[in-house]
Amino acid sequence: MAKRAVKQERAVRTREALVQAGAEVFGELGFAGASVSKIADRAGLTLGAMYFHFKSKEELAREIVLAQPERVKPPRDSEGLQHALDITLTWAYGLADDAVLYAGARLVLEQDQFGAAEENSHRQWTDILASDLRTAQARREVRKTADADALARLIVNACTGAQMHSSIESGRADLPQRIEEMWRIVLPSIAVPSAVARMEFGQDRGTRD
Amino acid sequence: MAKRAVKQERAVRTREALVQAGAEVFGELGFAGASVSKIADRAGLTLGAMYFHFKSKEELAREIVLAQPERVKPPRDSEGLQHALDITLTWAYGLADDAVLYAGARLVLEQDQFGAAEENSHRQWTDILASDLRTAQARREVRKTADADALARLIVNACTGAQMHSSIESGRADLPQRIEEMWRIVLPSIAVPSAVARMEFGQDRGTRD
Repeated sequence: MAKRAVKQERAVRTREALVQAGAEVFGELGFAGASVSKIADRAGLTLGAMYFHFKSKEELAREIVLAQPERVKPPRDSEGLQHALDITLTWAYGLADDAVLYAGARLVLEQDQFGAAEENSHRQWTDILASDLRTAQARREVRKTADADALARLIVNACTGAQMHSSIESGRADLPQRIEEMWRIVLPSIAVPSAVARMEFGQDRGTRD
Repeated sequence: MAKRAVKQERAVRTREALVQAGAEVFGELGFAGASVSKIADRAGLTLGAMYFHFKSKEELAREIVLAQPERVKPPRDSEGLQHALDITLTWAYGLADDAVLYAGARLVLEQDQFGAAEENSHRQWTDILASDLRTAQARREVRKTADADALARLIVNACTGAQMHSSIESGRADLPQRIEEMWRIVLPSIAVPSAVARMEFGQDRGTRD
């Protein structure tokens, strides 16, 4: 049993190393420019080890894209509307130093080359935000008449576009500011005034001390 | 003089043929996949003719990206806030059958490979929308306290993201609906109620009869 546990732990670490190496290579070269052998090289592993964990470059890219939401853990506890703000801010700040988030943001532009339409990161993010916004409606922060799904789609679309344009114009330095700007425009339409006044946007909502 | 006019007219037509052929090839293969010889072939022209008009693939791609705003001519006359709505709807409907718009939407994702940060289509669109929104403020449609530049950035970011996600999920079929949805969420925050009530979103705002 102990031997098997060690083996399993090693397999988990190898898989993580491949995800990290894949993220670095996809982030630098995009999906088309990356290759299975470049990724195995970067991880310091053989092609055999790579194929043991991932059938193909496509499968690894899908894993990186779908792993994004679980990597975005806001540093402060929150619920409802503040949680929706916090995950977008944590994502915006995290892109600067998390290779998997950075690769995910780049790969999302090439999803048609490896992803199925049903399992894309846009859908995942939309579901997470819509759920936060429904909680916010139950907490009377967001108006009952607001369409949580439409709003979640707008936030995800705006975050995607902000990331792309911010990347071209400022190497993503102004991304958190664009996200805050977005919320400040959208909030008065959808939230009650007391909730708007209570929302926090500071850097500490998206980064750890 | 007549001879020179004929020659100039022919040069303009050749240039247009190259832009159209370039748009088709970039739209199908992306910037990295396209080549100068494929584009010349598609236009039925020699490489010499191609290089007479465009120094490089990069130059042609930049022209296609920067030509986008002038191709988006709303079918109905409008000013201010309605004009801002109309250009986003005309763009959304136009993507389906204008090869130059389609290529522009694809090339914008690869702008780092050929464009300078100062001359990207995002900036152009942001300037156009900000100008419409300032007109809308002068017409008392949009509140004086709204930040026209921040709002224009949000609209452009959301349109870019909507185009990408709509392309993955529905082949762009739901793009006009996503654009309308975006405006319906944003408008109550920024516009006076009478202006919100007056805005038109129908298909005829973005397509010709």
